[in-house]
Amino acid sequence: MEHEDRVKSIDFSSLRVSDIIDGMHKNAFNARRLAEAAKIFHKMVRNDYFIFLTLSGAMIPAGMRGIVAEMMRRGYISCLVTTGANIVHEIVEALGIGHIIGRENVDDIKLAEDNINRIYDVFVAQNAFEEVENFLAPIISSLEGDYSTPEFLREVGKKIDDRNSFLRIAWEKDIPIFCPTLHDSIAGLHLSIYRKKGFHIDFMRDINQMLDLCFQKIPLGVVIVGGGVPKNFTLQAMLLAEGFDSAIQITTDSPQWGGLSGATLSEAKSWCKLKSEAEEVTVYCDATLALPFIYAYLVEKSQ
Amino acid sequence: MEHEDRVKSIDFSSLRVSDIIDGMHKNAFNARRLAEAAKIFHKMVRNDYFIFLTLSGAMIPAGMRGIVAEMMRRGYISCLVTTGANIVHEIVEALGIGHIIGRENVDDIKLAEDNINRIYDVFVAQNAFEEVENFLAPIISSLEGDYSTPEFLREVGKKIDDRNSFLRIAWEKDIPIFCPTLHDSIAGLHLSIYRKKGFHIDFMRDINQMLDLCFQKIPLGVVIVGGGVPKNFTLQAMLLAEGFDSAIQITTDSPQWGGLSGATLSEAKSWCKLKSEAEEVTVYCDATLALPFIYAYLVEKSQ
Amino acid sequence: MEHEDRVKSIDFSSLRVSDIIDGMHKNAFNARRLAEAAKIFHKMVRNDYFIFLTLSGAMIPAGMRGIVAEMMRRGYISCLVTTGANIVHEIVEALGIGHIIGRENVDDIKLAEDNINRIYDVFVAQNAFEEVENFLAPIISSLEGDYSTPEFLREVGKKIDDRNSFLRIAWEKDIPIFCPTLHDSIAGLHLSIYRKKGFHIDFMRDINQMLDLCFQKIPLGVVIVGGGVPKNFTLQAMLLAEGFDSAIQITTDSPQWGGLSGATLSEAKSWCKLKSEAEEVTVYCDATLALPFIYAYLVEKSQ
Amino acid sequence: MEHEDRVKSIDFSSLRVSDIIDGMHKNAFNARRLAEAAKIFHKMVRNDYFIFLTLSGAMIPAGMRGIVAEMMRRGYISCLVTTGANIVHEIVEALGIGHIIGRENVDDIKLAEDNINRIYDVFVAQNAFEEVENFLAPIISSLEGDYSTPEFLREVGKKIDDRNSFLRIAWEKDIPIFCPTLHDSIAGLHLSIYRKKGFHIDFMRDINQMLDLCFQKIPLGVVIVGGGVPKNFTLQAMLLAEGFDSAIQITTDSPQWGGLSGATLSEAKSWCKLKSEAEEVTVYCDATLALPFIYAYLVEKSQ
Repeated sequence: MEHEDRVKSIDFSSLRVSDIIDGMHKNAFNARRLAEAAKIFHKMVRNDYFIFLTLSGAMIPAGMRGIVAEMMRRGYISCLVTTGANIVHEIVEALGIGHIIGRENVDDIKLAEDNINRIYDVFVAQNAFEEVENFLAPIISSLEGDYSTPEFLREVGKKIDDRNSFLRIAWEKDIPIFCPTLHDSIAGLHLSIYRKKGFHIDFMRDINQMLDLCFQKIPLGVVIVGGGVPKNFTLQAMLLAEGFDSAIQITTDSPQWGGLSGATLSEAKSWCKLKSEAEEVTVYCDATLALPFIYAYLVEKSQ
Repeated sequence: MEHEDRVKSIDFSSLRVSDIIDGMHKNAFNARRLAEAAKIFHKMVRNDYFIFLTLSGAMIPAGMRGIVAEMMRRGYISCLVTTGANIVHEIVEALGIGHIIGRENVDDIKLAEDNINRIYDVFVAQNAFEEVENFLAPIISSLEGDYSTPEFLREVGKKIDDRNSFLRIAWEKDIPIFCPTLHDSIAGLHLSIYRKKGFHIDFMRDINQMLDLCFQKIPLGVVIVGGGVPKNFTLQAMLLAEGFDSAIQITTDSPQWGGLSGATLSEAKSWCKLKSEAEEVTVYCDATLALPFIYAYLVEKSQ
Repeated sequence: MEHEDRVKSIDFSSLRVSDIIDGMHKNAFNARRLAEAAKIFHKMVRNDYFIFLTLSGAMIPAGMRGIVAEMMRRGYISCLVTTGANIVHEIVEALGIGHIIGRENVDDIKLAEDNINRIYDVFVAQNAFEEVENFLAPIISSLEGDYSTPEFLREVGKKIDDRNSFLRIAWEKDIPIFCPTLHDSIAGLHLSIYRKKGFHIDFMRDINQMLDLCFQKIPLGVVIVGGGVPKNFTLQAMLLAEGFDSAIQITTDSPQWGGLSGATLSEAKSWCKLKSEAEEVTVYCDATLALPFIYAYLVEKSQ
Repeated sequence: MEHEDRVKSIDFSSLRVSDIIDGMHKNAFNARRLAEAAKIFHKMVRNDYFIFLTLSGAMIPAGMRGIVAEMMRRGYISCLVTTGANIVHEIVEALGIGHIIGRENVDDIKLAEDNINRIYDVFVAQNAFEEVENFLAPIISSLEGDYSTPEFLREVGKKIDDRNSFLRIAWEKDIPIFCPTLHDSIAGLHLSIYRKKGFHIDFMRDINQMLDLCFQKIPLGVVIVGGGVPKNFTLQAMLLAEGFDSAIQITTDSPQWGGLSGATLSEAKSWCKLKSEAEEVTVYCDATLALPFIYAYLVEKSQ
């Protein structure tokens, strides 16, 4: 056995995040997985991959919007695929309403009486959604024809004042945001109410635009946070294209339940959604923990 | 302490599934949860609730289609909300192609070379999807105008010969099948390729039709298998209506990750998606285990 | 593809537990795992294996004692390895005090004030442990010399009146009960208080007695419920012997955390704790759900 | 709503670990839990609590030994309670044999043939345990009388040359190491083989020595990594004492399975194992990820 093949404790003589994470390569379990994920992501960034971020779970209510925004600004991601809920909660933040630090052991019926909605340990006032409605209604009712979700979200982004909103930054920097479950959200309810005849959110158009991105003749990487439709929608486009060159995944799900959110990236290779030689790793961890440290790693490595 | 409040071992003098499950009321942890779920579901059936089944995860490749079909036949469910993947795999079954019993410890790159796709421990031949394409293409290209997914899937169901297909049974019995992520599947790719100009899958129409069902003045119940968009899409309609009267949930996810799939049904009460007095319980279990036993319970109790 | 290799829905024309479980062989995920586990366990029983049951987690407070007792009576298990907590809670049951059906969303500080202890959704009155103390103290203080835990628990079992207690049944039927964490329980506190000088629980003697069982020249099987010390203590004896011939495991833990409780039985083969050709399967499921159905399967198959 | 009650994105203008973690207080889910855990642990250190670290799971093979050693050196922990396996693997490291960086997708039967044992993605050569045997045998056979595990491990620690071994550091600094499952390990096998008549590892003596520590009239804190016997053994001592003043827990287990490893610290309050007013938090995370960042936090805050 060579010494470099050995498990080694992290050397904490430097306390930099990137040094700690690099030290985790010689640890095991999910520490080693985190180190590999950070390294693969950094390689994508350094080598100018076109990088898709798929974002599921209540990441915006949980405070991850700053990271998404900064990753757009710094060029760490080239395209975002997320859920309707994350779009709605981003608007809640962008309008200055925000989310309340709550707790999970609470009387939900009392909360309901107080017009407070709960997302695990985050609260959001019910009237937040009225303000979202007031903001979205005129945008929706002004549109005609067929829109893909990236096209629609561009219309939304350019109406947002908040410079920290990733919807606005995406519009400024021409970064497409796909939301294949836009209708599966409060924004979907608003769309169903305020749209004029002749205005369609056309999700098949999303497919075509996603395919265009997947057919680009440049290295393509994907950063998967939390599974769900954003993961599947992004990977399935590769059934018609040549597969991702590189992929990382952060999930709290497990393979043995058989669902897609916990499926290994190796399984994705059997579908040719990843190239057979693609580097890939899954970190089994709450993304609210893994993502900030990976982000700090990328920033330090880019300095 | 009254004796009826005590934990008691199951009395196995009867080995009937329903007696075993009823015995679990006096156990703890997820045994007790299963007993409560079976009881609540049975109450919904006995009292003629309008019952939504939301079905996520690769339940059809895993062999659960017979249960879905029989629950429709027996009137245990009134409406199905499921994923694009489950629709596609139902068609794979209905066309007689089927899924192969595989295993999870396998060389995925070798599988890819052999044109075999893997879903944990199930294999599916890649050409299965060509047959799905051959089946769906003429249906898709024959349609014009706006269709909700229940309307589109009715067109599909009536073209299916297999009498065990829940798509066909739903058509026969006029049971709506919602598929808010139809585009997030191979069927979505086919839709984007074969649709004629002027044909839209209009998911906002799904919202309106779901709202109509949620506004019915009869008791409404929901059986949630596996979270995801089917869960959220069904529950969110209640933001505009009065909340479900009764709900059960089978999931392998956990509350502490903060996502919707693992969220408690109590949390749903803070959103008024369930009525405050609604009976509800979550069973933390792989649905391939819990669902067959709950189904057998319902059949025995209905005899 | 042969038809017998295909995923098939369960045929519910028979609702017998054993027929349902046999039908799960053609399903996937943990349904298939349950079917394999039941089949392997039944094979052990039918072929007169010497079968170790390792039992961790709060299985006795959860109502599983009847199954353990009956498995001893029916000869489904030859040896039990369990935790100190399960022994203490068995005595609580055997003394007629019992456990209370509680719930998990509760004010724990209020419970403490009411002298109620909580085990997830089970309550136990604090004075239960005083009665355990009154029962154990004279036994402990009457003993001299070195005792292995099976030897000590035989002394306990013969003092128990309750004919449904597995401690008593084990004594009657000469089934060894190992408790390598006896000191890690309230009984351990009692032992430290009431033992006379010269009385030792000698856990190294447990090792020797476990080794004797593992050196028997008959087929050896192991049924692992819930990991922990009972799992490891039983498997580690095989480092000196030739490995188990057959093994099943029911756990809610997952492999990717790296710990023993979630470790695959394949991993155990790298340690030669299982023979290389041993049949083995892990069911990822709460044992309060899986165990009763497996037990019913064995009973039906033995009729 | 006050602004300080709002969810806020982390301010990455400082990339220091402690600033990132402090920023997580305004996030949600396990990020917020990590921030609370780090803060509570730091408070224990700053206020000179007597701090127990309970350490379960294969933490030493996974590379966490450096952190344990340094926490002893820096006075962050006052007492260690761990498993037999972690003691054995610490000796493997201290003897310079070490663990090999492996992987989890591998042919375990082939590994067995090559005399390689697997711990998820870590390998250890089988002859490592022969060297442990050669090291331990003379120590064991030289001892007479009754030893608690802290007393026995002091004998081991003083024979270790490696200055980075926490067994040696504990001996140097007079930090007790409890190992209530010492017999549940390869060291247990060695003890059963090499001990002379009249030498006992007396675990009831461990109980008494643990009680002495729990009766100290100073603030008492506990840092729980991974549940298992170390968690229970440490908490149960408080059934006779007054409860911990402060507690944090890092676990990958979940409450809904009903077992102790996933039990909330609130549940522990119903048993009075924690004082009713004790600050406590559970971080649901692989400890190989959470522990290094918490350690770095403590070091930065102590500078």
